[in-house]
Amino acid sequence: MENESYGIQVNGNSVHQVNGSLYQAKMRIRKPKWNIKASEMSRRTFNPIRAIVDSMNVEPNPSKNMIALSIGDPTIFGNLPTDDNVLQAMKEAIDSKKFNGYAPAIGYQKSRETVSNFYSCPEAPLDAKDVILTSGCSQAIELAIAVLCNPGQNILVPRPGFSLYKTLAVSMGIDVKLYNLLPEKSWEIDLKHLESLIDDKTGCIIVNNPSNPCGSVFSKSHLQKIIAVASRNCIPILADEIYAEMVFSGCKYTSVASLSTDVPILSCGGLAKRWLVPGWRMGWILIHDRKNVFGNEIREGLVRLSQRILGPCTIVQGALEAIINKTPQEFYDNTISFLKSNSDICYSALSTVAGLRPIKPSGAMYLMVGINMEHFPEFESDVDFTEKLIAEQSVFCLPATCFEYPNFFRIVVTVPEDMMLEACARIKEFCEQHYHLHTDSILQDIECDK
Amino acid sequence: MENESYGIQVNGNSVHQVNGSLYQAKMRIRKPKWNIKASEMSRRTFNPIRAIVDSMNVEPNPSKNMIALSIGDPTIFGNLPTDDNVLQAMKEAIDSKKFNGYAPAIGYQKSRETVSNFYSCPEAPLDAKDVILTSGCSQAIELAIAVLCNPGQNILVPRPGFSLYKTLAVSMGIDVKLYNLLPEKSWEIDLKHLESLIDDKTGCIIVNNPSNPCGSVFSKSHLQKIIAVASRNCIPILADEIYAEMVFSGCKYTSVASLSTDVPILSCGGLAKRWLVPGWRMGWILIHDRKNVFGNEIREGLVRLSQRILGPCTIVQGALEAIINKTPQEFYDNTISFLKSNSDICYSALSTVAGLRPIKPSGAMYLMVGINMEHFPEFESDVDFTEKLIAEQSVFCLPATCFEYPNFFRIVVTVPEDMMLEACARIKEFCEQHYHLHTDSILQDIECDK
Ligand SMILES: Cc1ncc(COP(=O)(O)O)c(C=O)c1O
Ligand SMILES: Cc1ncc(COP(=O)(O)O)c(C=O)c1O
Repeated sequence: MENESYGIQVNGNSVHQVNGSLYQAKMRIRKPKWNIKASEMSRRTFNPIRAIVDSMNVEPNPSKNMIALSIGDPTIFGNLPTDDNVLQAMKEAIDSKKFNGYAPAIGYQKSRETVSNFYSCPEAPLDAKDVILTSGCSQAIELAIAVLCNPGQNILVPRPGFSLYKTLAVSMGIDVKLYNLLPEKSWEIDLKHLESLIDDKTGCIIVNNPSNPCGSVFSKSHLQKIIAVASRNCIPILADEIYAEMVFSGCKYTSVASLSTDVPILSCGGLAKRWLVPGWRMGWILIHDRKNVFGNEIREGLVRLSQRILGPCTIVQGALEAIINKTPQEFYDNTISFLKSNSDICYSALSTVAGLRPIKPSGAMYLMVGINMEHFPEFESDVDFTEKLIAEQSVFCLPATCFEYPNFFRIVVTVPEDMMLEACARIKEFCEQHYHLHTDSILQDIECDK
Repeated sequence: MENESYGIQVNGNSVHQVNGSLYQAKMRIRKPKWNIKASEMSRRTFNPIRAIVDSMNVEPNPSKNMIALSIGDPTIFGNLPTDDNVLQAMKEAIDSKKFNGYAPAIGYQKSRETVSNFYSCPEAPLDAKDVILTSGCSQAIELAIAVLCNPGQNILVPRPGFSLYKTLAVSMGIDVKLYNLLPEKSWEIDLKHLESLIDDKTGCIIVNNPSNPCGSVFSKSHLQKIIAVASRNCIPILADEIYAEMVFSGCKYTSVASLSTDVPILSCGGLAKRWLVPGWRMGWILIHDRKNVFGNEIREGLVRLSQRILGPCTIVQGALEAIINKTPQEFYDNTISFLKSNSDICYSALSTVAGLRPIKPSGAMYLMVGINMEHFPEFESDVDFTEKLIAEQSVFCLPATCFEYPNFFRIVVTVPEDMMLEACARIKEFCEQHYHLHTDSILQDIECDK
């Protein structure tokens, strides 16, 4: 063949024969230039909390120490240390020298067994093969969405809700439809609204119970109704149960899976909140598939996806058995009674503040507070309100616009009690200073001043 | 409006008014059915090593103990423990109780500073802001590919090469073009071939040095030529330098970045290999961008991508400063002299085996061995060859088809010396038993037998 020899010019391309294979080196018309753009996926990966918080460039009041009620990290103030058994388990895992090598991508068999035993119950039995260990609950959610949905499909997500669902979905080209939670019904799901959003492209319903940011806990009967919607429409549930069992006395936690007879469920959880070690990045997916609807496909898909980055730190995996089995009940109880006491303090204090409407939580670590905006006409929005609260009172609460829910703000109740009290007093003062009976009366005032 | 009241039937759809917004609940013609498929991405996520190894369903010879030379995990046999200072650093991080909460998504400032100080050099200075901590080098590679390439673009990847590049790229819809390494030139890159593959859609060139599976180490001048190709074509380099500094005496390791004046480089590394703790999942991306070609976009893209799952375990991050600064030089030296000694043993032994062609390595933990297939006419392929090697000799080597390079197999040289010797003796015996002078002579033999 004519063009098999080295370097013959063919239509402005030079054709080389190297190593027996034929290929072309294009003659470039212009010298190439550097032109590197960040990928669309990296641009679509958008964390609204970061964006909103970074844009809130206000200085706290220098005469008051800053109180941050904004970050869902229970370890910040040192008042909620993890249990000593948990630390001991880690040190033993290190000393054993058995957990330095690669684990299987989905986690050590033994560690998965520990998790399955811990969460197994007669209504929703689990086996080691039903557990996939992940790098935090965040990766559990990422893998669960990634295995259930293709780009162009959609997921149903609570509003208000944890922002990561949308961040992940949008970055993968998956649409997000927000279903409403009803503050007047302790943040239960508006089931009609939920069902109305379902279409042929719906890949899963995300149910977050107990809830961030609401601190709400669904009753058994409400969960049954949610499952009925999923069942009628044949849509799997992604249950974000990272706050599993973190419910206040008088309230009972029920896992979604324990109530489902047919709807397949991927339940995402981890050590972060209940064991108070969010930095350790230990999470899991529990695969509940009573009727074998997921079949092998979803399991194998999850296994394949987990091979991309190879699961959580092996030291934490090695310690998992002792962490889960040796942490005394008392530790969990103490955490919960602290959270309840603090949220009671906060709820009571803010209930007396004119213009605010706190919604009483039953679990997790959060409390949502409605702002009666017409009584605060100076402020344009919850973002504006919380900004000024920082500037004047050095109290930082997240505006619920971060959770797609304007006119509310979220309080994290893990801070020490004295901080909680002080923060509430300052919020009260702030509100008193800015409260107006209602817009009309101000307009009248302005008229009178002229 | 007529259809604003609840439940009016309009064209077979029922229109509800809930919470003030109007939406439709489709009346379904048929009852929905369960029909859940794993996403295309999860199906495209394909690990060739797993696929090939799982298909090699052979039993080892029961009369010989199994020797696995297949897994790139230096910790398996216990002969290469990490340094005690490394374990001590971890225990101190635990005891400090300072590293249980969330770290910034890209890692603690202090830990990033430690990494930047360790790798900074006059030719390629680094700052904490140039470091992103990741969950293993695997996630570093994932983020680097994800920020540089869009679906439909391509990356250039070495053949033979580490399979994760392709696994990740294909799962993201990014094409892979394989450039040849030349065994006769100690696995240097066929630069003409490399350059010929570049087109407008090329997002980056992956350079893996020292190499898995080759154990090769590029000279300074070869690296300069690679950079020249990238520079001429304005393509960034993704340098997989997880085996950085793991080179044998007489050979010098040079980082790609230290030679680049204009080409921007994302260098991926981690603790896995040099510190012998692959399970701990601590990796990093070093951003080298002398001429500000990446600009803020790529940095910000990486930061955003890192927020998806929030980086590596905080205990390892907390220990990183002591791990990197307190590990004595002797530890690194001992590892390397062990690896060199073992690879010398292996290379010498296999050099004397008719039909095999080991390629002498200069670093990392691997050695590639060519199989002169015409001398082993019984075996169809390297996969077949290595399968029979397990069945008869209980020695497990990875067929290099796993690395897109048929007719070779890869040996991991981290096993204890006596195992290495025994494995080589068995490989020798195996080859002697199956060696034929060449195909023609066998055919003659067969003729004679008739
Ligand atoms: C509802 C919810 N899900 C998931 C996560 C993420 O958990 P992890 O830190 O284990 O990734 C959080 C963290 O705040 C959360 O609030
Ligand atoms: C060339 C190469 N790059 C990256 C990795 C992955 O490293 P890590 O275990 O830190 O994810 C490996 C692991 O074997 C490797 O050989």
